[in-house]
Amino acid sequence: MASEREQAIFEAAIKLGALYHQWVGTPVSPSTASTLESAIQESVSLQPFVSDIRVSLDRSQMTENIFGYSELKGTMFTVEIITRVGGSCCHARLQRKGDYPLMEIVSCYEES
Amino acid sequence: MASEREQAIFEAAIKLGALYHQWVGTPVSPSTASTLESAIQESVSLQPFVSDIRVSLDRSQMTENIFGYSELKGTMFTVEIITRVGGSCCHARLQRKGDYPLMEIVSCYEES
Amino acid sequence: MASEREQAIFEAAIKLGALYHQWVGTPVSPSTASTLESAIQESVSLQPFVSDIRVSLDRSQMTENIFGYSELKGTMFTVEIITRVGGSCCHARLQRKGDYPLMEIVSCYEES
Amino acid sequence: MASEREQAIFEAAIKLGALYHQWVGTPVSPSTASTLESAIQESVSLQPFVSDIRVSLDRSQMTENIFGYSELKGTMFTVEIITRVGGSCCHARLQRKGDYPLMEIVSCYEES
Repeated sequence: MASEREQAIFEAAIKLGALYHQWVGTPVSPSTASTLESAIQESVSLQPFVSDIRVSLDRSQMTENIFGYSELKGTMFTVEIITRVGGSCCHARLQRKGDYPLMEIVSCYEES
Repeated sequence: MASEREQAIFEAAIKLGALYHQWVGTPVSPSTASTLESAIQESVSLQPFVSDIRVSLDRSQMTENIFGYSELKGTMFTVEIITRVGGSCCHARLQRKGDYPLMEIVSCYEES
Repeated sequence: MASEREQAIFEAAIKLGALYHQWVGTPVSPSTASTLESAIQESVSLQPFVSDIRVSLDRSQMTENIFGYSELKGTMFTVEIITRVGGSCCHARLQRKGDYPLMEIVSCYEES
Repeated sequence: MASEREQAIFEAAIKLGALYHQWVGTPVSPSTASTLESAIQESVSLQPFVSDIRVSLDRSQMTENIFGYSELKGTMFTVEIITRVGGSCCHARLQRKGDYPLMEIVSCYEES
């Protein structure tokens, strides 16, 4: 059986994979990025075992197409998420590394 | 060639089809629906030829799963959109009809 | 009321907007592009008023990330769709124009 | 630092969360389900650390709407995935449990 620590890792990764493919492609611009960040955070917070989530979208990548807006790309995301299962927490991250939107485990810890 | 009226119709329908498949599946609850409505409206407003857009998500369909939230379904949407190409406007709608999320042209008109 | 010709235009645009936002972000490579094209075509063909649909994904844009694959981008699509409402047909297209994935009406015609 | 076993768990969960939100909402019927299963499998197989993936879509839930098709729902999925990081493997699953599309770790093991 998986430990609580492993389940916390599993849950964190589900949320990162899910939000990425839910939101990529959404029209966005620097003027709408803030509402979009809130919508993503609130949406992910509804899901089970999410203890904290911070979403930041890189405005500098929001270059205008011929109609003056961008689409949300994977590399625009910086997401920090903390999941908790029992007393075990997992802090994971989605962040651009070069041209790749990398998801990784930052740390795992026990909380009393 | 397509007339301005026909192009306004074309543009309205693109936006309805697009937002539907962009946002369906998003975790949502009555407490987050308002931010989600704003995010959808702002996102669609960025796209070309959109003159007005109103999004309303039916809270009564947001029944809780075992973890206490819902996912956005097509039948939850009521969307009124107005597109304008030149002097021609198209008012179109996405709204539940029975169990089907129906998209339809409401009216077309000229604006001076 | 909208004419059959206008309804055919409306239906074609719904499908283009819908497929774009349904499929953008999907992992893809030259070796999987063919199955993905079939899946998109079959999926769109299920929708009402679709008379014909051809999807072609530009392999030359499928440059490998550090893990050896791409994600489906809007500019990779060439889609030709024909919708029919009553005796009226609309031929519409999604195709890259410069850096923008442009959707446009190609022609409308009557079919007996 | 996360162990290889933990990283295998993390990678399996990313893929389950990702595919769910990528594909939910796609028009589908019993006649197109097979191509869609292949497309999902091929797409996920491109992603890093995926050793095996099987996708089965429940035809019995594909009830026809007024236009004769369904949309892919989370509860239609049965997905078995095996990821491998170094010598550590994770077998995870997405499968309906009552009305909820549950993702869970099935087992973890070492492979020489």
